[in-house]
Amino acid sequence: MPPTFLEKGNGNQYQALLDKYDTWLFDCDGVLWNGDGLVEGAKEALKLLRNQNKSIVFVTNNATKSRKNYKNKFDKLGIDATVDEIFGSAYAAAVYISSVMRLPKDKKVYVIGMSGIEEELNEEGISFIGGTDPADNTLEPFSLAEFTLDPSVAVVLCGLDTSVNYTKLSKAFQYLTRNEGCVFLATNEDSTYPESSGLLPGAGAVSAPLRFALGKDPLSTGKPSKTMLDCVRAKHDFDPTRTIMVGDRLNTDILFGQVGGISTLLVLTGITKLAEITGPNASDIVPEYVTESLGDLVVGRG
Amino acid sequence: MPPTFLEKGNGNQYQALLDKYDTWLFDCDGVLWNGDGLVEGAKEALKLLRNQNKSIVFVTNNATKSRKNYKNKFDKLGIDATVDEIFGSAYAAAVYISSVMRLPKDKKVYVIGMSGIEEELNEEGISFIGGTDPADNTLEPFSLAEFTLDPSVAVVLCGLDTSVNYTKLSKAFQYLTRNEGCVFLATNEDSTYPESSGLLPGAGAVSAPLRFALGKDPLSTGKPSKTMLDCVRAKHDFDPTRTIMVGDRLNTDILFGQVGGISTLLVLTGITKLAEITGPNASDIVPEYVTESLGDLVVGRG
Repeated sequence: MPPTFLEKGNGNQYQALLDKYDTWLFDCDGVLWNGDGLVEGAKEALKLLRNQNKSIVFVTNNATKSRKNYKNKFDKLGIDATVDEIFGSAYAAAVYISSVMRLPKDKKVYVIGMSGIEEELNEEGISFIGGTDPADNTLEPFSLAEFTLDPSVAVVLCGLDTSVNYTKLSKAFQYLTRNEGCVFLATNEDSTYPESSGLLPGAGAVSAPLRFALGKDPLSTGKPSKTMLDCVRAKHDFDPTRTIMVGDRLNTDILFGQVGGISTLLVLTGITKLAEITGPNASDIVPEYVTESLGDLVVGRG
Repeated sequence: MPPTFLEKGNGNQYQALLDKYDTWLFDCDGVLWNGDGLVEGAKEALKLLRNQNKSIVFVTNNATKSRKNYKNKFDKLGIDATVDEIFGSAYAAAVYISSVMRLPKDKKVYVIGMSGIEEELNEEGISFIGGTDPADNTLEPFSLAEFTLDPSVAVVLCGLDTSVNYTKLSKAFQYLTRNEGCVFLATNEDSTYPESSGLLPGAGAVSAPLRFALGKDPLSTGKPSKTMLDCVRAKHDFDPTRTIMVGDRLNTDILFGQVGGISTLLVLTGITKLAEITGPNASDIVPEYVTESLGDLVVGRG
């Protein structure tokens, strides 16, 4: 079925949408903001939802920040949010390791990632090495001969890491090939990472060297994986028929909603361009609704 | 057709092989040596070939060293070789850029790679940036806002780079997405890199983040690409029916021989294990001959 294009300024159409859904899941980058710049009207749209007593959950693949840390971003931009409303892919990974894998206390995780992942692992009481450890954040040559394999590493967890380097990749590769049964996890598989000046390689690009060297894909706990939605629902029950996912990416946000059996609204303030849903080479992933910007929810309401 | 397994110690069989081929192309890592350790008998096998007036060419995907530099490795291990006998994938990339692409003199290459690539580009008179430039060999945060796109970058060339980092990947990504027609080249696509203590991520893993972020594969100038064989033949004419490629990898060396229409001999001293050619999940890439080690050529000849 083709998507329903909402007409900016048509208040009735937007109110009908508001009446239909009680729980609104939001992607953040490209929906609420781009880098450090607020999307026009996004703040007011969220306020409108709160005034109408909607449940709001922010579902982000950003794994560089913990939920607590991520909340600072909301505060800085003046958007109301509580830590409990925020679900990050690093948190989902930590919950997956502790609750689904039930990693024994004497086992640990090797991290390619930043402090956000470490904080979420700490909160779940999971031991880890790598990550921000200065010993692994180096461009010095990696010596395999001098490397000691830690037999207790049972998971390699990979997220966006702007300090990714050959030492980290080499260590992770050793664990994944030499520790039997070592699990290859990724917080998310976003190919790119949007910031205010443009696009940079995303978390999926950071795990790509391991993917390529191993000839195997990681299990992802971020959107579009259903693991993420199960995690949201465990903390925050909702009726799927009255829930909508709002996002800017077809292959993460919109697919995430579809995989989870909830409705979907695409905004065009981020990655996806109109041609990708209407053009001759349109994507197979079709959102239920499309609007130019989240701000359209409030246009014409004074 | 199943491969012919040569029987170690069966002198007649090996002499028949020697009689059949005038030109012997060799992979190095995993065939002549592993890391810094010589493969037993490899040196003597090469001597035997020279005594029988065979042409010898070393065809390597190693792009961390220039041919001149790579010759030092032969010298160190006491193996006779001339620079002209050595063909590296960095050299093939430089020849491809200068002779096939005919890159205009006012255009340049952005390099993710080490000094070997830079030396070969210099030899061909090709301008480049990136590579070993200290400014790009950093784990400091990359600021896209402060980055100035050089409009003259028309090629991104990626090889094994043990100093690969987010700044280099981000810059390469900008050139490939923002400089129209910028060509994505890789010296080779080896998934792993063998050294004496084991396997590390290879050049293919280093270009994998760009592959993943772009959703597009690079053009490779290394084995198994025919570009490499064309380059060998331009410098060193041979009769394909009397030429054999000796290597340890099915998906690079053996495929390279097959793509180029020459014979192939697999040795088991490197990456490929016997099960991969005989097991229930045997590879589709079947070598013409298999022998345990290059040293088998001399076994029983005193």
